[in-house]
Amino acid sequence: MNYSIIRYILGQVLRTEGLLLLLPCLVAVYYQESVGWYFLLTAAICISLGTCIAWRKPKSTIFYLKEGCIATSLSWIFLSVFGCLPFWFSGEIPSFTNALFETISGFTTTGASILENVEALSRSALFWRSFTHWIGGMGVLVFLLAIIPLSGGSNINLMRAESPGPSVGKLVPKMRSTAQILYGIYIGLTLIEIILLYLNHMPLFDAVTTSMGTAGTGGFGIKADSMASYSVTLQWIVTIFMILFGVNFNAYYFLLFRQFRKAFSMEEVRGYFLIILASVIMIAINIRGMTKGIWDALTQSAFQVASIITTTGYATTDFDQWPQASKTILVMLMFIGACAGSTGGGIKVSRFIISIRTVIAELRSYIHPKVISSIKMEDKPVEQDVIRATNVYFVTFLLLFSASVFAVSLEGHDLITNFTAVAATINNIGPGLAKVGPVMNFNFFNPFSKYILMFDMLAGRLELFPLLILLHPTIWRDVVTYCRRMRKLSKNKQ
Amino acid sequence: MNYSIIRYILGQVLRTEGLLLLLPCLVAVYYQESVGWYFLLTAAICISLGTCIAWRKPKSTIFYLKEGCIATSLSWIFLSVFGCLPFWFSGEIPSFTNALFETISGFTTTGASILENVEALSRSALFWRSFTHWIGGMGVLVFLLAIIPLSGGSNINLMRAESPGPSVGKLVPKMRSTAQILYGIYIGLTLIEIILLYLNHMPLFDAVTTSMGTAGTGGFGIKADSMASYSVTLQWIVTIFMILFGVNFNAYYFLLFRQFRKAFSMEEVRGYFLIILASVIMIAINIRGMTKGIWDALTQSAFQVASIITTTGYATTDFDQWPQASKTILVMLMFIGACAGSTGGGIKVSRFIISIRTVIAELRSYIHPKVISSIKMEDKPVEQDVIRATNVYFVTFLLLFSASVFAVSLEGHDLITNFTAVAATINNIGPGLAKVGPVMNFNFFNPFSKYILMFDMLAGRLELFPLLILLHPTIWRDVVTYCRRMRKLSKNKQ
Repeated sequence: MNYSIIRYILGQVLRTEGLLLLLPCLVAVYYQESVGWYFLLTAAICISLGTCIAWRKPKSTIFYLKEGCIATSLSWIFLSVFGCLPFWFSGEIPSFTNALFETISGFTTTGASILENVEALSRSALFWRSFTHWIGGMGVLVFLLAIIPLSGGSNINLMRAESPGPSVGKLVPKMRSTAQILYGIYIGLTLIEIILLYLNHMPLFDAVTTSMGTAGTGGFGIKADSMASYSVTLQWIVTIFMILFGVNFNAYYFLLFRQFRKAFSMEEVRGYFLIILASVIMIAINIRGMTKGIWDALTQSAFQVASIITTTGYATTDFDQWPQASKTILVMLMFIGACAGSTGGGIKVSRFIISIRTVIAELRSYIHPKVISSIKMEDKPVEQDVIRATNVYFVTFLLLFSASVFAVSLEGHDLITNFTAVAATINNIGPGLAKVGPVMNFNFFNPFSKYILMFDMLAGRLELFPLLILLHPTIWRDVVTYCRRMRKLSKNKQ
Repeated sequence: MNYSIIRYILGQVLRTEGLLLLLPCLVAVYYQESVGWYFLLTAAICISLGTCIAWRKPKSTIFYLKEGCIATSLSWIFLSVFGCLPFWFSGEIPSFTNALFETISGFTTTGASILENVEALSRSALFWRSFTHWIGGMGVLVFLLAIIPLSGGSNINLMRAESPGPSVGKLVPKMRSTAQILYGIYIGLTLIEIILLYLNHMPLFDAVTTSMGTAGTGGFGIKADSMASYSVTLQWIVTIFMILFGVNFNAYYFLLFRQFRKAFSMEEVRGYFLIILASVIMIAINIRGMTKGIWDALTQSAFQVASIITTTGYATTDFDQWPQASKTILVMLMFIGACAGSTGGGIKVSRFIISIRTVIAELRSYIHPKVISSIKMEDKPVEQDVIRATNVYFVTFLLLFSASVFAVSLEGHDLITNFTAVAATINNIGPGLAKVGPVMNFNFFNPFSKYILMFDMLAGRLELFPLLILLHPTIWRDVVTYCRRMRKLSKNKQ
């Protein structure tokens, strides 16, 4: 295993985080909050530690999928552990577990909070919370790829580990350019949302944090009632942008380069819009009795559907009070999730399309056993490897999901709470139903359950395997062997 | 498509059902119940109709998987529709939908009941209910194969469609002998249970019906409190026999022919016992505060675990009152189910073993991308086709499961009720939690939900694809073409 490249990437990630931490410091200066010192302290720690770790350049920059996965998982763990320090140092979140939960929830764009009263937080802390969403949404390694020249063609393995979806494609031949284009689109869309919200009379700070939460499909609100107290216009703007950030970014790339036909023929995107449309209409009809008319029902339905399917997690109403059919639709949307290649979580629309087609192909094989039927997507046959990986993904997801529900159930809360708490974290959504409903929070769980849910958030964001690989005995054996060799080497030197 | 063989099999199935219906007639004679006339009437209808349909021998006895699946699904639908007539004719279950639900629940060995007061039923009806479990447990087509000489090697396609598990093996080269051996073991074990129960002071009628329910892993009780009022000894006998009927019958075949090493090295059976042992201990510890001591806790835990994992569905206590961790374990067991090649339902232990190994192999492929790792079971590599089919099974199951939960949720009951009602029917268990808990029944659902649940019971018993194939447009097109050709032929004759 190429340990030095992993070390180097981790150092770079830490240093980048340190630089990013300077932004909340600026916010602290603007609002004259003394809490800014803790952000500055953490930034200093990250930058100095990161520089130390990344000091020596790696001997070889070639790395394989294994190194890519390990580097990615460790990066995300490092990011979270160091990112939670300002909350903990300042005492704004006194417990380390809670601070870590909140930060992982931020970076993984989950948006599940342990805060009883979010409005008590300082502006700097609120900004950092939302900013973690924005960083986590597109991915910190994609960001690194965009700014640091990591030579070699092997860095697609980093992107493969971090980017969501069953198969990763480069937009342009060069990885670095792909990353830059993606971040360009990301920044552009975020800015448009900020401006639109600001023009429609949302205070600037709210507009910035809300937009960052929307862009990363995160869902941390800065108000106790999430988005309920904003005007209907603002709610619709957020609804539309949530949906936009759930679209496969390739579509925007095609639009940008005027390949309109390609953009509008993307099956996944069309499926995604179809699911949204159907769900919004069904729920609006189902809840119209509880609202002030059909327009209000549509507004509420569209906002909640967009928020759940894109796994953002903002809320304008307590959907836990909705009728069962609507709640069931929402729970199903939790699992479907957004498009591959978007900032959203969940299992992803494309995986569902592939799976449904696999089932149809299987049925066909019962009828015509001798005909080998291929599965198509975007008019191209899907590779056998992608089909297999998709099926295995479902099975792995199911196993991890049930194990987590069981582990959390040891605490004795009701089944709906446990089920939707795991669903909301592993799919990076935020709110669930019952005790973790949109007006509740995750603070009542004991530390054991909180760590399980943190694991689920990371596993969901990194799409299971890059994180699960850390638990594989081979990796541990490798690390132990490496450490022994190192100790021997240093002994020999003495 | 070979329509004549399908017609022939359906006729034979109907005639067999007519003959089997004579047994409850005998019960009626013994207990002098006038309801027996309705059973005799139905038997007459089945025998005469069946003889008519199967009058002409099929031109060709060759049939493929497609015909096997269609014949099997239609057989089960015919069985249920005709099997429910005595309940309906006699007015013991006045609604046709309810009578059909109860009969499908019987044949599929689910054991979900719509009866508010089971003790009000006549002895003949109670006997028929339990007898449907016994017939459905091993399968009516396997029974047919054992008694009628269906020439040709293609009749493994019938067995493949009806027998549970990811791959079907013949015990001996001849299909007919395999079926006879299976039914021999089945009858033998059932008789032993009847005798043991009777010797331990259970009334003979109770012993027979209880044993038939255990053998088919059905779960219809003849008392309102299921098995709670029987002595602890009787409960333990039933516990042990439930577990025995959930074992892959190949194990008994090996034991019978003194191949002990083969029998005890079956990985699936060992996994099955391991899961049972772990669950019993965990639940016993979890519920010990609610019971009269550790022995009582073990008795209750063992009975309920055996009942749920084998998908029988008897109960000695209202496990809906148990702590959450225990309830979560039971819900997980609902999905795991018994061994392949047993009379039990669920997803099957072997599928889980294969899936877990697929996940491990996938993780390994991240670490060593160039090594192609094969998945082993019973020390033999599992065929790629079986692995693919297993993964597709999971995905199909998941899709059908969610669609059903959504359809049932339209009625507005709580999520736990809908979720466990579908889980309990698709896995052929019987009781779920909340409104469908062990002391409740399924009568409160509206007819739409009931038909959805009936579909799920059949889909679960036939392992999805044989039933789903009936919904495939190709089949419908074929049937329409066939009907048109027939009409043309008869017109030409005129």
